[in-house]
Amino acid sequence: MTYDCGFLAELPLSADQLSFASTAREEFAADFGTTADAERAPDAVVWPERTEDVSAVLAAADERGVPVTPYAAGTGMQRAAVPVGGGITLAMARMDEVREIRPADMQVDVEPGVIGDELNGALESEGLYVPSFPQSAAFSTIGGMIATDASGTKTVKYGEVADWVLELEVVRADGSIIEVGSKARKTSAGYNLKELFVGSEGTLGVVTRATLDLATRPPQTVGGRAVFSTLGDAAGAITDVVRAGIDVATLELIDPLTAEMANAYTGSDLPATPTVFFEIHGRAVDAELDALRARFEAHDAARIASTADDEEMAELWRARREIGHALTEWDPDRELEVVGDVTVPIGSYPTIIAFIGEIADEYGLPIPAFGHAGDGNAHYALLCDPGDAEERERAHEASDRIIRKAIDLGGTCTGEHGIGADKRSHLRAEVGDGTVETMRAIKDALDPNGILNPGTVLDEVDQ
Amino acid sequence: MTYDCGFLAELPLSADQLSFASTAREEFAADFGTTADAERAPDAVVWPERTEDVSAVLAAADERGVPVTPYAAGTGMQRAAVPVGGGITLAMARMDEVREIRPADMQVDVEPGVIGDELNGALESEGLYVPSFPQSAAFSTIGGMIATDASGTKTVKYGEVADWVLELEVVRADGSIIEVGSKARKTSAGYNLKELFVGSEGTLGVVTRATLDLATRPPQTVGGRAVFSTLGDAAGAITDVVRAGIDVATLELIDPLTAEMANAYTGSDLPATPTVFFEIHGRAVDAELDALRARFEAHDAARIASTADDEEMAELWRARREIGHALTEWDPDRELEVVGDVTVPIGSYPTIIAFIGEIADEYGLPIPAFGHAGDGNAHYALLCDPGDAEERERAHEASDRIIRKAIDLGGTCTGEHGIGADKRSHLRAEVGDGTVETMRAIKDALDPNGILNPGTVLDEVDQ
Repeated sequence: MTYDCGFLAELPLSADQLSFASTAREEFAADFGTTADAERAPDAVVWPERTEDVSAVLAAADERGVPVTPYAAGTGMQRAAVPVGGGITLAMARMDEVREIRPADMQVDVEPGVIGDELNGALESEGLYVPSFPQSAAFSTIGGMIATDASGTKTVKYGEVADWVLELEVVRADGSIIEVGSKARKTSAGYNLKELFVGSEGTLGVVTRATLDLATRPPQTVGGRAVFSTLGDAAGAITDVVRAGIDVATLELIDPLTAEMANAYTGSDLPATPTVFFEIHGRAVDAELDALRARFEAHDAARIASTADDEEMAELWRARREIGHALTEWDPDRELEVVGDVTVPIGSYPTIIAFIGEIADEYGLPIPAFGHAGDGNAHYALLCDPGDAEERERAHEASDRIIRKAIDLGGTCTGEHGIGADKRSHLRAEVGDGTVETMRAIKDALDPNGILNPGTVLDEVDQ
Repeated sequence: MTYDCGFLAELPLSADQLSFASTAREEFAADFGTTADAERAPDAVVWPERTEDVSAVLAAADERGVPVTPYAAGTGMQRAAVPVGGGITLAMARMDEVREIRPADMQVDVEPGVIGDELNGALESEGLYVPSFPQSAAFSTIGGMIATDASGTKTVKYGEVADWVLELEVVRADGSIIEVGSKARKTSAGYNLKELFVGSEGTLGVVTRATLDLATRPPQTVGGRAVFSTLGDAAGAITDVVRAGIDVATLELIDPLTAEMANAYTGSDLPATPTVFFEIHGRAVDAELDALRARFEAHDAARIASTADDEEMAELWRARREIGHALTEWDPDRELEVVGDVTVPIGSYPTIIAFIGEIADEYGLPIPAFGHAGDGNAHYALLCDPGDAEERERAHEASDRIIRKAIDLGGTCTGEHGIGADKRSHLRAEVGDGTVETMRAIKDALDPNGILNPGTVLDEVDQ
């Protein structure tokens, strides 16, 4: 579908804030998880520089029924930032100011285009940080993280990005500007709109400012890794650590195939067996480390290595940190077709990890599995020859089986990546028709003309 | 207003599940924070025993436009469970089953009428608990805590009740039954309806089952108290502890007047100076305790007492624990007129505490202040002669001034009690017209006939 977006030229935007050129438009037809699809390019791109720009675009688009899709850094995995059928892309990269750090309140006001790691860099001199960023924080922005309710390796201790969002400035579909949430650390004042907008993937409003809660950097950090003989041992050790309430800041698993890929990419020499990575933060980390070690040893862990030295830790963690590149570089003839992020109740973690292996065998596909095990989150990847349509279809079928299993175990089709356009049917299978209809009622109430990122999260009404 | 509720007799309810008697009805015309007002009694009371009962009542009431107000244990402070203008009260007390404990998943399924402390008692043999209950958990129920997004003394470490709710079964206004949230510890699947229903005070749906996340009981607990010379010292010590990232499980303040009242009620011998109570949980609590002690000493704390013994701790904490009774028993001629629960960013905590004292002086009223200081939460109470209308009006004016100050400081009019009927104008002052309208749009979308607890949180449409 194509929309006439000429009206944008009448808005109070400077010339370099607006483009109809195909090179500019096609830049916004893909995200990290997908290859560009020129069919899905927007008809126009606007680079807002202030809240009023977003408001003006939305008000004008809403009047005309033209879709608007916000685009953060493009590091998403589910094409949530890629238009389904044309319209306007709001490229948020220029709204990248860290507006105010308030150390005494342990808060910061940021614009949505601020890169995660840059924010934490700006906070370092105050000894503060946001602990819950995803591993992509070197590239991904606060706005994108809020849109998907991202999380990461430290979520097992520190929660999701949502848990660090106190207040949002949001532009509604009609261009009106509201604030939701509170700068108080807790509030029971009215409906929790803040949590509603977080994770709504740009379908309910556009975030133009966020006030984030901050944590004090831990006085001590220790981290390391251990290798296990079997996936059952590794998964069992992880569930035991969680059940014992050991205060881990990270608890990550990679399976033997992922270890092989990481070795190939990083030159590391992990044995091709399951490896668990961990980190502990606090004022007396040794007590927690001893408790963790005891659980690991009870599951026959070998080579438990730990260190409080930053460089040594970076070396121990290299294989985990480089998985993204290791996967894409593994086989030059294959591309990432699916990256899954199912999440299950912790007691079912060994089951879902074993099931991914069974599916790999049944479909004859290599399926590396890894993820934020302490949260019950299992990532897996399917790498396909882009020219082999049959294999690609088989990969999606295999992934669908894993997702259905996760849902059967009481889990979710997505722990952190979001629904985007591609997982809408899984959302329905997971939460049920009545819950999807409830989401739809809210969408229709807040965006009656359906201009905000249509076809994402929920089906379009006329489909 | 009065509604004909005779249609309830046609529903598949047993005789003892329904009453039109005035004695039964008047029981539901007050909550803990207010005195009974016969004008606000419902026209009928239904005691549901299963989800289907709730569904049948709502479907029938929705067809007829009859208001329905859910009532949990009546321990609320804002009359959220008291009908504004008649209709049906849904008394949830009989839905009090702990349905399933899943220790391996660290989860429990409960009905809304389960009392907080009873749930934690049932979980004790598994070494599990919900750490975030309010101090009223000896009486208050899971359903009520969810309705207000309650929190308590341990929120500074463990978050609010909302943070322990994974999944809810909710009956919508039309009687349809949905599930929201996920049994996975994190999910990015669609809109966060779970957080929307939590804290919505029965105005968007009725919760009939909750799956709660559980924490492992800490291996070590140490707690105690310290007295300070001035409120400024106490508040300063508190903000320093939070800013240093000391891992406190509780951090509570009582002011000199509250200490006096506690002494009178409990026979304790606290000096009439500000007192701070604390608790630390973990595997190596001494390191955190030493760090806390250093901050307290830097603010000239005296009599820092701490213990790991449960009985000794109960004794140290007695003054804090008994505040509720101490306030109401303090002067037989006075009743609680207002209990405030403003919450501000932690850097402004000394300011709001000082301001409460200034208001007490200006209005010539005794205003004891206390609360969950580590969260920036300040409770205060106004005790009035019920026959003195002028004094009661002055008390409300004084409270309004404190609330406006908290809002000016970036805070909230309610950290945990909710809006109810009485704080609707403060909600608007706090979040703004556009945000209230956004809440209203959601309310209208989910409850188009406006039957769910009308006049609570939001103004009635026809007002």
